[in-house]
Amino acid sequence: MIFPNDENLARAIEFTIEMDKMKSVFRRSSIFDGSRRENDAEHSYHIALMALAFEKYAPEGVELLRVLKMLLVHDIVEIDAGDTFAYDKAANLTKKEREAKAADRLFAMLENGAELRALWEEFDAMETPDALYAISLDRLEPFLANCLNKGDTWFAGGVGKEAILKRMAPVEKGIPALWETVLALIEENVENGFVGEK
Amino acid sequence: MIFPNDENLARAIEFTIEMDKMKSVFRRSSIFDGSRRENDAEHSYHIALMALAFEKYAPEGVELLRVLKMLLVHDIVEIDAGDTFAYDKAANLTKKEREAKAADRLFAMLENGAELRALWEEFDAMETPDALYAISLDRLEPFLANCLNKGDTWFAGGVGKEAILKRMAPVEKGIPALWETVLALIEENVENGFVGEK
Repeated sequence: MIFPNDENLARAIEFTIEMDKMKSVFRRSSIFDGSRRENDAEHSYHIALMALAFEKYAPEGVELLRVLKMLLVHDIVEIDAGDTFAYDKAANLTKKEREAKAADRLFAMLENGAELRALWEEFDAMETPDALYAISLDRLEPFLANCLNKGDTWFAGGVGKEAILKRMAPVEKGIPALWETVLALIEENVENGFVGEK
Repeated sequence: MIFPNDENLARAIEFTIEMDKMKSVFRRSSIFDGSRRENDAEHSYHIALMALAFEKYAPEGVELLRVLKMLLVHDIVEIDAGDTFAYDKAANLTKKEREAKAADRLFAMLENGAELRALWEEFDAMETPDALYAISLDRLEPFLANCLNKGDTWFAGGVGKEAILKRMAPVEKGIPALWETVLALIEENVENGFVGEK
């Protein structure tokens, strides 16, 4: 294929080609009709769109552009590092190292890669209002998939109430208006026998 | 499923559930390895990420947040109206009407739906710098897929050089630095016999 002479422009095209692989990194969680697992591109799209839908309920001072950038890049390291199931303790021990190595390679492809990498690190640290809003959306999407599919990865993965509560905790600060509903949904799924026991 | 009492918050969740269907609207174009067709969620994700990668090459005055909003919602009407193949003349005659009806239903689900609908209309009109940059990315992604897959939808759909040139024309103003490369890639595909004849 022909590439532009401008080196940075050529690298933006190489990055674009590389990012297509997000469509082939499959996650544990399902699309909402339960028919198949979803991939990272679909998940990232969905939560970026949710950032527009829930904007009014974000914490004060949240900057939507920063949130969207975070959500668009938050999983790109999985192109090299793979998807790590949130409730898999062993895999999570090596996650940080695997993902840092991937970040070294992927963010370096872009002129503004340092800015985007910093946003990815801010997302992972879950401290700023932007990161708390972003991570809440990231947690909420597979949470809804499970609610709509009889517990799906909770039930199949033996994931218990306490682990789900811990996983969803950022929502209390990230989208406070939703917290009560999240708690009620967890209770509903426990009562229906759709969560595991660990 | 339990929904929040706050009506607008409940509708944001309903919108989220509705938008999952973007993962099941399949397009003519393939993912870059050519192994299968891509869906609207994957395509929209890819071009939103490209908006970050090519930002430096956007026209002067482009506002990235507006561009990202446009790209995230530009295809949601296809949930009701379906994907219309760009080079299908008959289907394109009814496209506008089908999509306007879909927009009436879908954007109305959100409090900020009027703002997002206006951005979708601005995108479709292809006049402002933001829209020209956004539409260039929308055209570039399947263009690259075809370049990487021996013409794919061009060859299979009998799409000729003039139709491709017309389709890609927004790139001349939307990402000027890429225009020369786009022209060279079209020539390369014509020479290789990867485009159709219509």
